[in-house]
Amino acid sequence: MEHITSRRNETVRAATELRRAPARKQQNAFLCEGARLCADAASSGIRILSLFYTQNSAQKYTAYLQKIRLHVLEEEYLLEPSVAEILADTKNSQEIFCVCEIPQTARITAQQFLQQSAKGCCLALEQLQDPSNLGTVLRTAEALGIETILLCGECCDPFSPKALRGEMGAAFRLSLVRLPSLAEALPQLQRADWRTLAAVPDASAAKITETTFDVPTILAVGNEGNGLQQETIDACSGRVTIPMQGRAESLNASASAAILMWEMVRGNGDKNG
Amino acid sequence: MEHITSRRNETVRAATELRRAPARKQQNAFLCEGARLCADAASSGIRILSLFYTQNSAQKYTAYLQKIRLHVLEEEYLLEPSVAEILADTKNSQEIFCVCEIPQTARITAQQFLQQSAKGCCLALEQLQDPSNLGTVLRTAEALGIETILLCGECCDPFSPKALRGEMGAAFRLSLVRLPSLAEALPQLQRADWRTLAAVPDASAAKITETTFDVPTILAVGNEGNGLQQETIDACSGRVTIPMQGRAESLNASASAAILMWEMVRGNGDKNG
Repeated sequence: MEHITSRRNETVRAATELRRAPARKQQNAFLCEGARLCADAASSGIRILSLFYTQNSAQKYTAYLQKIRLHVLEEEYLLEPSVAEILADTKNSQEIFCVCEIPQTARITAQQFLQQSAKGCCLALEQLQDPSNLGTVLRTAEALGIETILLCGECCDPFSPKALRGEMGAAFRLSLVRLPSLAEALPQLQRADWRTLAAVPDASAAKITETTFDVPTILAVGNEGNGLQQETIDACSGRVTIPMQGRAESLNASASAAILMWEMVRGNGDKNG
Repeated sequence: MEHITSRRNETVRAATELRRAPARKQQNAFLCEGARLCADAASSGIRILSLFYTQNSAQKYTAYLQKIRLHVLEEEYLLEPSVAEILADTKNSQEIFCVCEIPQTARITAQQFLQQSAKGCCLALEQLQDPSNLGTVLRTAEALGIETILLCGECCDPFSPKALRGEMGAAFRLSLVRLPSLAEALPQLQRADWRTLAAVPDASAAKITETTFDVPTILAVGNEGNGLQQETIDACSGRVTIPMQGRAESLNASASAAILMWEMVRGNGDKNG
């Protein structure tokens, strides 16, 4: 095992690069931080290319490390704390890091998705900007059993350090489809037998509580500030809304996504209306 | 108007103190940061004791400042940017701050609450630890029209700078009841005609989707890591759960609170089961 003592070490430099989106895209890899998250990657079948840890973390997280080690494909590195620091994204780092391959299931193209037959319910996120929001939404999707998420337009990256922290490993297991433009993909999706619904804060739209989800459906949710793009709303086959009595504008992106996803899975055939 | 140029100015020091919980409790006041949030405090009828801003922010947020100024009870202060820095809780501060009185509606005692007749639905949060989670929960409660929240045990403070940022002003308008111990208060609440339900991740509990909310109900939700205390669960009149097909343990505190509150308000009489 190599012992890295210099902050200028090239292997560490290369791993640090993966904190930025372009490097992740180019290398098809990401940097995973934390004992639990790295162990979660291992048990979710993520290909772990290399493992980095400090002496201190080896003592503190022995059980996690044992689990991770069984899955390391290339190399293990022992780091000095000063070197671990430049890999860390959090203030109180656990000083355990893995360089992992982004799984096939997390980079499904529009073409691949269209080749599958339409079934179940998916969520499409358009231009979600905040990695913490994305993290919470993916985590909630997995909790509720929604297995496919479409990431559309300039959506933030589920493999950024901040998004990963909010996800509890959801991106390791969900099917993530990348669509450069949802509006442009909608006609094709509809021809492939997907019903497409736009979630809008508009009392004239169909109530989500009165909408059944017994046909394959893609529910599109917009970004934090501006919601869905008008062209996306227009290209969807219908519009749905969360009927509310309170101060509706206060509902944040991840809470409204939670309620929408919940209504998708909560039980068909039992809808009011 | 006083112009404050020294970071050692006593008025600024006293305002800075309000970033900490003990000072807020002692002085019954909080520090509000940001043009929009301060204006929101003003339009929500919060008593604004003093206003602080920089020359730069006065130019940038003229409309907000005009609105806030109409409500300042004591004094306005012009700050040098270096002084504003010590009041700021965010990296890119807007350099507008108000010292405000914590409203009566946000410090309802158990006794006061018990004197009101039981009606509607309330959420009780036991020992919620993360101010961002608390912020999101309060914001979601307001959005959904749930007007009373019981903050129980060592629950974090809704008037901390971090909680305030997530709340979108919800704490200015909600009724917030402080209970030192939920478990101990439950018998009294039940005698006062409240039904008390404990939210638990347990498939043997009643499904929230089959629970109607046509009687006055307090729904208790536990903290992020450990849920409700066992003695609280035992003292409640019933237990409810979110029925899930996915990876239920992945649901985070604010998402599960959103779904629970949604089920409380989503429409009685239309429940499945």
